[in-house]
Amino acid sequence: MVPLTGGTQIKAGIIGGAGYTGGELLRILINHPDVEITFVHSNSNAGNYLYEVHTDLFGDTDLKFTNTMSSLIDVLFLCVGHGDARKFLEANTFPESVKVIDLSQDFRLKEKASLTYTHLLQDGKRDFVYGLPELNRDAIKQASNIANPGCFATCLQLGLLPLAASNNLNAEVHITATTGSTGAGQSLSSTSHFTWRNDNLSVYKAFEHQHLKEINQSLKQLQGGFDKSINFIPYRGDFTRGIIASMYLESNLTQEEALKLYTNFYNAHPFTHVTNRNIDLKQIVNTNKCFIQVQKKDNKLFIISIMDNLLKGASGQAVQNMNLMFGLEETSGLRIKAVAF
Amino acid sequence: MVPLTGGTQIKAGIIGGAGYTGGELLRILINHPDVEITFVHSNSNAGNYLYEVHTDLFGDTDLKFTNTMSSLIDVLFLCVGHGDARKFLEANTFPESVKVIDLSQDFRLKEKASLTYTHLLQDGKRDFVYGLPELNRDAIKQASNIANPGCFATCLQLGLLPLAASNNLNAEVHITATTGSTGAGQSLSSTSHFTWRNDNLSVYKAFEHQHLKEINQSLKQLQGGFDKSINFIPYRGDFTRGIIASMYLESNLTQEEALKLYTNFYNAHPFTHVTNRNIDLKQIVNTNKCFIQVQKKDNKLFIISIMDNLLKGASGQAVQNMNLMFGLEETSGLRIKAVAF
Amino acid sequence: MVPLTGGTQIKAGIIGGAGYTGGELLRILINHPDVEITFVHSNSNAGNYLYEVHTDLFGDTDLKFTNTMSSLIDVLFLCVGHGDARKFLEANTFPESVKVIDLSQDFRLKEKASLTYTHLLQDGKRDFVYGLPELNRDAIKQASNIANPGCFATCLQLGLLPLAASNNLNAEVHITATTGSTGAGQSLSSTSHFTWRNDNLSVYKAFEHQHLKEINQSLKQLQGGFDKSINFIPYRGDFTRGIIASMYLESNLTQEEALKLYTNFYNAHPFTHVTNRNIDLKQIVNTNKCFIQVQKKDNKLFIISIMDNLLKGASGQAVQNMNLMFGLEETSGLRIKAVAF
Amino acid sequence: MVPLTGGTQIKAGIIGGAGYTGGELLRILINHPDVEITFVHSNSNAGNYLYEVHTDLFGDTDLKFTNTMSSLIDVLFLCVGHGDARKFLEANTFPESVKVIDLSQDFRLKEKASLTYTHLLQDGKRDFVYGLPELNRDAIKQASNIANPGCFATCLQLGLLPLAASNNLNAEVHITATTGSTGAGQSLSSTSHFTWRNDNLSVYKAFEHQHLKEINQSLKQLQGGFDKSINFIPYRGDFTRGIIASMYLESNLTQEEALKLYTNFYNAHPFTHVTNRNIDLKQIVNTNKCFIQVQKKDNKLFIISIMDNLLKGASGQAVQNMNLMFGLEETSGLRIKAVAF
Repeated sequence: MVPLTGGTQIKAGIIGGAGYTGGELLRILINHPDVEITFVHSNSNAGNYLYEVHTDLFGDTDLKFTNTMSSLIDVLFLCVGHGDARKFLEANTFPESVKVIDLSQDFRLKEKASLTYTHLLQDGKRDFVYGLPELNRDAIKQASNIANPGCFATCLQLGLLPLAASNNLNAEVHITATTGSTGAGQSLSSTSHFTWRNDNLSVYKAFEHQHLKEINQSLKQLQGGFDKSINFIPYRGDFTRGIIASMYLESNLTQEEALKLYTNFYNAHPFTHVTNRNIDLKQIVNTNKCFIQVQKKDNKLFIISIMDNLLKGASGQAVQNMNLMFGLEETSGLRIKAVAF
Repeated sequence: MVPLTGGTQIKAGIIGGAGYTGGELLRILINHPDVEITFVHSNSNAGNYLYEVHTDLFGDTDLKFTNTMSSLIDVLFLCVGHGDARKFLEANTFPESVKVIDLSQDFRLKEKASLTYTHLLQDGKRDFVYGLPELNRDAIKQASNIANPGCFATCLQLGLLPLAASNNLNAEVHITATTGSTGAGQSLSSTSHFTWRNDNLSVYKAFEHQHLKEINQSLKQLQGGFDKSINFIPYRGDFTRGIIASMYLESNLTQEEALKLYTNFYNAHPFTHVTNRNIDLKQIVNTNKCFIQVQKKDNKLFIISIMDNLLKGASGQAVQNMNLMFGLEETSGLRIKAVAF
Repeated sequence: MVPLTGGTQIKAGIIGGAGYTGGELLRILINHPDVEITFVHSNSNAGNYLYEVHTDLFGDTDLKFTNTMSSLIDVLFLCVGHGDARKFLEANTFPESVKVIDLSQDFRLKEKASLTYTHLLQDGKRDFVYGLPELNRDAIKQASNIANPGCFATCLQLGLLPLAASNNLNAEVHITATTGSTGAGQSLSSTSHFTWRNDNLSVYKAFEHQHLKEINQSLKQLQGGFDKSINFIPYRGDFTRGIIASMYLESNLTQEEALKLYTNFYNAHPFTHVTNRNIDLKQIVNTNKCFIQVQKKDNKLFIISIMDNLLKGASGQAVQNMNLMFGLEETSGLRIKAVAF
Repeated sequence: MVPLTGGTQIKAGIIGGAGYTGGELLRILINHPDVEITFVHSNSNAGNYLYEVHTDLFGDTDLKFTNTMSSLIDVLFLCVGHGDARKFLEANTFPESVKVIDLSQDFRLKEKASLTYTHLLQDGKRDFVYGLPELNRDAIKQASNIANPGCFATCLQLGLLPLAASNNLNAEVHITATTGSTGAGQSLSSTSHFTWRNDNLSVYKAFEHQHLKEINQSLKQLQGGFDKSINFIPYRGDFTRGIIASMYLESNLTQEEALKLYTNFYNAHPFTHVTNRNIDLKQIVNTNKCFIQVQKKDNKLFIISIMDNLLKGASGQAVQNMNLMFGLEETSGLRIKAVAF
């Protein structure tokens, strides 16, 4: 663990602070007891108050977006679009001591998890650890750079990791999952037009969602020989926050065995909770928690996994990773009141 | 075809007219060019105007609910709860010439499709035909009694019938489908409380939905040897009307073959339309149509089926059956304006 | 009444058929017993099937959008943006016998209700009648050109016309009304982004909505000396269709007098219905109806008015005007099944 | 200020913990740094885990509901129905040192703000202070018993208090406000049935809402001679959380004067924030904040007030009052992350 920059507070810089994950990160960090926000970078909003973009922050902070950056920080959060994180780090110099947490997909796959850069002041290399605490907590604690997982990827992996860890992933997996509209970000589009999306459901990228790659990578990390298909049907939901995934596969495990397996696996993880009760999406909205329901139905093991796509699926998990990297309590700043209704 | 009772208009009686399917039936029948409503029976609302319950009907009709019935009708619609349709017909005498269309599940399964009754005036027997026009149109035309299919059952069967009809249903089938809240009817319940259901999704009766029986029955009617599992995960949706089902199975059919197979199968059916374009739930809300999207993804045939649970999934299909039974144009009274948004 | 062009069907052309009011007009006209669609013009979608834009029409029509126009029509509907209707008629020649129904605001105000044009083939003039049947039915029957009222304007006028007609509009009027998102059209914008609008309400154009002008014009047409303020607070609603307006003013009328006044005023109008029961927005969604609730509360007369912004507030009323202009039954093609839920 | 019961943590008991305000209070208190929950009383749920009712709490607490009470507490929250709070305090003995915060309407009006009780162990009297911190902060700090304001009442008062405090409330006030469904509580009813309420708006209790009494009481507390009408039209909204109120009255204040007046009035209040920017309901959902927009339109002063009905309108304000009563930071435990979307 690197010591902090001469103070008790972690100094954080944020790149891409005007988007949804940037805003959500700000909502967490302004109440985080151990963090001080050094700058919030946004090219398009430089000079504006944070609350002019994230209007709920009115009354909470008088910080403004800036188009300059300071390297006197402990951690840098990258909340930019896919592809732009790598470009940013190639173009901008930060000391090696500055830890990086990237919310894009740029460094999630092992074959792309390194960045070699040549700057005026220094050449260097950043190696990224895949930041799913339930999978890689020890590595995250030692990491200097984190590739924060995707939202669907987090929800689905949390539903399957205990099976892979126990070599119980021995059949084709069938998954349907529905995401809230915030998953598609701030950009206006026909499928995020209120008139179209209200009361509507639709499938997209059936069998082809890009998160399948990181999911497969993680499952194989735990169960090397895993070679079954993961069939994944993603839906656009008519709500703003949250993902609900239902999954099943043939399994020899009994309900009791499965429940015990899952409960034990997540026992030491503060945000992921296993139950055999019926769960519903809104239970976890506006929290960093993931609930997993495990049931056996004839020869099928049936798993439901729910979490908030912007928190456990993005900015909340990013802060969880930061907490681990800096030796803080894993839940620090993340005991968030659920919206519940 | 039985001649009508001395007039050009079909005289219809409705039992259970105060519920959702009853109301939806009324919305159709008051604009049906060939139907005259003789009575709308409701024990709880006798004496009230229809528009006191179905408040959108204000200005359209001054009919009242009644607690008496007339046998001078051509067709009797039963919109009562499951189990109550059989009881009603056992307890009440209608001439054999009165055709019956039952929207409950009481007569859908072949082993329960007959009613033998002993009344004061007559003994008799009513044999029910399963009223899915895309499966049984010729039989429906000859039928005196119709067991109208369930809503999920209709949506799922329409997605699979062409495969069964061509003996192409040769692998396990994986289905997830989400229904609007009207599927749960008018009764107040915790899962239909607005505060709970708004922006929420939840699974119920996974692998165990009661409609699986009628679905299996129909598929075996077309493909006798069908013995694969149908895995069906039903969801409660946070919208009021419509069902969207996504289904897949391993298949040797190419996309072109599948599309042709489906298109040909539904070619002569006026409400069910096949496409390879992306579809979304709201396209069919407030219509009697079913849209089916067919795609091949690697070795999987992927099918999406959408329809309105109260129309094609209940009252609309009931009128479609009536049209067929009485030799009317199949679409009569059913060219309904979509709500679209 | 001009005789139709050599047939029993009214031949209709539509300009701007790819927008929301254009689509809604098409949904009505394809089921209208007396209308034949001659062309649907759209620059951006020429060559595409109607159902590629209005996707619910799949299976209903194989018509395509065109970028050419025919003058062999009886009626031309203009579904273009505000300002574009006048420009279109200045730039394009149609015989005087072609009736025009304009859904924009271009000709609603008396001072702008005339168009003088100079074309190659003819000079001419078109005078527009404000197309609110409950106000101007006789004039509409004689009209060659109709300026179709705005959506808020229709809803608010229908709530106040009986008072103006009886010189009972003698105090300041206080109105709050909420509209569905379709009122803002198809264009993507931050206030129609699903993530923003879902579960959200917001005020816009308080005291300044542009429809106030046509409302005042109509009220003064009936009660010449009306000089009180109309305070109008419009809200953006988190639903797609419908407007609900609540209005009150000081009044000497008793509840009975007011109810009688309203009932009598709308007695001969088939779509506008008066009640003293509680009404709610969804009762009229997807219909051409307007419901008006009238109550007296102490010295205030309290009125609620509800209607569908795209039907009675736009395309439905346009067809109602067409029916009147061509001597058809006023309700022809407009007995539309409510969505109800 | 009474010293705490032998510890640094405030010991809290909750009566009626299974309802919506009880649940919301629990969500706050389990993360409150200065509070320890001693018991959560519920007759209907005694023995059940909190998370069996408030299912989002799963993983946060293993507390159970109880049907017994301890008097070894510092503060008692009453989250029971209107009328039941008074009955409860008449029937149950708590030492005088136990402060009471009642969320019902039982003690809000001055003429009902006292309770005289005769118990076995003691006779006594409890005098209640109306717990609106922006109105009565100093009195609240000294109070032993708090009558927590109603949700609409809070939202409307916060929009009007600065005017009353400066004797600027000199004309009739016109208010329309819309509330989320949680305002109607957990009980199932036809107007909280999802099928009915989704996409629906409706007016209820126009001019007659019970909160008008406490509003008038507070305004007269500040501006003794206030004798104008407050016209209040409440709406049921199709969302779960939040209230948005728009209000106007004739006023001589300029926009600048009004803005300054409001800003100064709320300057020292940490949750109520004044702006001249456009606000929208979701900005404050899941926070204890109230945003107030002030604009001048011709001779009308126009005010929009938004807040979360369950937090600033109920349980959040209850904790704010507790903080004040016990000398804590007013915002302690109440810096809640907005849901934002």
